[in-house]
Amino acid sequence: MTKVKPALPKGMRDFGPDQMARRNYIVAHLREVFERFGFLPLETPAMEKLETLTGKYGEEGDKLIFKVLNSGDFLKKADREALETHNLTRLAHSIAEKGLRYDLTIPFARYVAMNQGRISFPFRRYQMQPVWRADRPQKGRYREFVQCDVDVIGSTGLLSEAELIQIYQMAFASLNMSIRIRVNNRKILEGLAGYLGVENQFTALTVALDKLDKVGMAGIRPELAARGLLPKAILDLEKLIEKRSWSLDQLGGLLNNERGQEGIAELRRIFSFLPGAARGNVEFDLTLARGLDYYTGTIFEVTAEGVEIGSVGGGGRYDDLTGVFGLPGMSGVGISFGLDRIYDVMEELELFPENMEKASQVLFVNFGGEAEAKSFEMLTRFRLLGLRCEMYPEAAKMKKQMKYANARRIPFVIMLGEEEIKSSMLQVKDMQSGSQTLSTEAGALEMIRAALETQ
Amino acid sequence: MTKVKPALPKGMRDFGPDQMARRNYIVAHLREVFERFGFLPLETPAMEKLETLTGKYGEEGDKLIFKVLNSGDFLKKADREALETHNLTRLAHSIAEKGLRYDLTIPFARYVAMNQGRISFPFRRYQMQPVWRADRPQKGRYREFVQCDVDVIGSTGLLSEAELIQIYQMAFASLNMSIRIRVNNRKILEGLAGYLGVENQFTALTVALDKLDKVGMAGIRPELAARGLLPKAILDLEKLIEKRSWSLDQLGGLLNNERGQEGIAELRRIFSFLPGAARGNVEFDLTLARGLDYYTGTIFEVTAEGVEIGSVGGGGRYDDLTGVFGLPGMSGVGISFGLDRIYDVMEELELFPENMEKASQVLFVNFGGEAEAKSFEMLTRFRLLGLRCEMYPEAAKMKKQMKYANARRIPFVIMLGEEEIKSSMLQVKDMQSGSQTLSTEAGALEMIRAALETQ
Repeated sequence: MTKVKPALPKGMRDFGPDQMARRNYIVAHLREVFERFGFLPLETPAMEKLETLTGKYGEEGDKLIFKVLNSGDFLKKADREALETHNLTRLAHSIAEKGLRYDLTIPFARYVAMNQGRISFPFRRYQMQPVWRADRPQKGRYREFVQCDVDVIGSTGLLSEAELIQIYQMAFASLNMSIRIRVNNRKILEGLAGYLGVENQFTALTVALDKLDKVGMAGIRPELAARGLLPKAILDLEKLIEKRSWSLDQLGGLLNNERGQEGIAELRRIFSFLPGAARGNVEFDLTLARGLDYYTGTIFEVTAEGVEIGSVGGGGRYDDLTGVFGLPGMSGVGISFGLDRIYDVMEELELFPENMEKASQVLFVNFGGEAEAKSFEMLTRFRLLGLRCEMYPEAAKMKKQMKYANARRIPFVIMLGEEEIKSSMLQVKDMQSGSQTLSTEAGALEMIRAALETQ
Repeated sequence: MTKVKPALPKGMRDFGPDQMARRNYIVAHLREVFERFGFLPLETPAMEKLETLTGKYGEEGDKLIFKVLNSGDFLKKADREALETHNLTRLAHSIAEKGLRYDLTIPFARYVAMNQGRISFPFRRYQMQPVWRADRPQKGRYREFVQCDVDVIGSTGLLSEAELIQIYQMAFASLNMSIRIRVNNRKILEGLAGYLGVENQFTALTVALDKLDKVGMAGIRPELAARGLLPKAILDLEKLIEKRSWSLDQLGGLLNNERGQEGIAELRRIFSFLPGAARGNVEFDLTLARGLDYYTGTIFEVTAEGVEIGSVGGGGRYDDLTGVFGLPGMSGVGISFGLDRIYDVMEELELFPENMEKASQVLFVNFGGEAEAKSFEMLTRFRLLGLRCEMYPEAAKMKKQMKYANARRIPFVIMLGEEEIKSSMLQVKDMQSGSQTLSTEAGALEMIRAALETQ
């Protein structure tokens, strides 16, 4: 076999035991909150038909979809003309009919449309799976990352928005993470476009606002001008943005058009479900836009406090996500948690509890020969009683076995050598204190259990 | 946006809430046993460099690897000569540098080789992730399926084999599944080849034996002949196979060569760790071969009793899995559980407990107006107390809301209308009995908790 240098594809990562323990910690906390809010789990396949994915994430998004080469003779259906004219998009579609999941929202919409007859609406689902994007990797941005999504589909009730805000609050509180939830409404942005007289440049406006945090007003000004906004409109926008902390009341007095008023009324209703302290970390932000086209109402974005890492979650209401799959008029609202970003924040702020690895609680030393079989019998009894334990798989030198127990942070070591077997006793070593005790099996069990409980 | 008929790629499946509850049930049981045996979790990315994957799974396997088209201008590096000569393999490698995970063993070997300096050996890891194969889908065979692997790497100690057998026993016992564990050893098969005088046709012999269960002796005879086995050798093999239940002692008297004796001694040592009842469902099977080339010692295969569904797990010892990645001489042994097969068996034998969906325990009826906000406040208090609950997101007709509660099998419905609010009371409806009770909030909580506990 040809030798291969072991390496990972660009932007992809392994997660060893230490990281897995931390990732599982986050996932378990999210899952618990999702289920407490009555959401049910769903999983969709890693691959979708390419036609399901393309055209949903904008032109840039389409380019970032990983395409899977058709199996067998992939050249048979190859678009020869596209090959000769170097039309990469058309050629790719002719040799790759499948793509990797790019987010969880479109597969969810596809699932709902496919199973509409079997689902009781409103359908509350959560989904925690990896997605893949052929993005340029950088700090906090990976080519494989896990999204944790929660959606309610099949109702226009604004109560759902309030619930999703609560999910953000409770989930992050359970992880000890301080966050800020910014909320806006696409109808308010439409109202804003009306106020500025730029209804026809709505997309340009939202795309620009989306970049505001990163590049500032100076950064978006040229783009807005290039997209046809008149200097007066840009100046008016600038004035609005300068005073960032608009209250709904203040904005209500300004946006004298129906769409804007509608959006304001929606946010007022949502906030009415979150009185007093419940609104604590939730704020209305006129400049929040969320890039995705399918949002039609409330939009959310969550940032972590105390770190510069971008958003750790976001979402919004969509009125017609399933329409393209033949199921029109299904309003829904959803939010997403970015597991990898949350992990990075928690690492940076040292929010993970210590010693989360579920390593063995007891290591049985392997003395070989008959002692090996006797130790293994006892090990099996310990396991049946629910203790996590293991035995060194061969009769290596004692020093090596102890070094292993230390490296794995195994708190107790049991030694059952020939001498101990004769006297029906064993030695228990507490690896932290270093103390070693001669004990019966029952005595050792009791001692270990008591010590583990107080940890 | 162009309308798209919602559909799944061939051989791929969605898992709705019902199936997810059952899949999670299996995963949780396996994880618990793996951790009790001191194994630690690992995850590797869905994509590997194609060079990591190819050449490891045999010629047939290579064809079944899903290849991921390079992003950007994938034609830039395209092998023009391969294109013109229709050399699909070479062309594919020039436009697709990554492939999807085909099993968990090779990525594990790649991980171990890459991280050898950081790992304390022997390394005990478990891994539960989907793998993808461009196989022809059929009953029990999917293009995306989950493997659950357990491996010990970095020791030749045969105790590990005994432990893995115990893991199979305990895990399947915890799932209430009856199984048979067949065990053999590649060295015994080598000894068999020596006995038959077909040392040079060893691969032909194992490949044929691997098919024996499916096609019988009549089915493999022509293949063995075609691969150069003389009629005498085939006849000798046939006689051996006819008497299927060879004991190690009987076989030891027959295979008078070193390799065969070595394999027999290894199995004897392993079985010595599993005395009496512990060997119950474990049997030596001379005809077990396991197709994969990298096995060098003990091999395992697990079949479920009472169904015709093929194996639900298998594995074996490998002496040089990481050698190809530049880390030679690392012996290891591992087993795999096929989640999807186990699921299918448990479905067929009706082994899943009932009502495993973690749906809401309480539905709050939505009466709209002020009652909506009041109900939502109470709902929030219930959630903070750990109850799974939800509220219908809009003030739909009572009948519709009740129908929803029924469809979701939510056991309790709480009604807090204007009248109840005035009297600080609420109505609790037990959906199973149909009885409705006027109660205080505290009373309702107590009633619901008591009922849920006895379920």
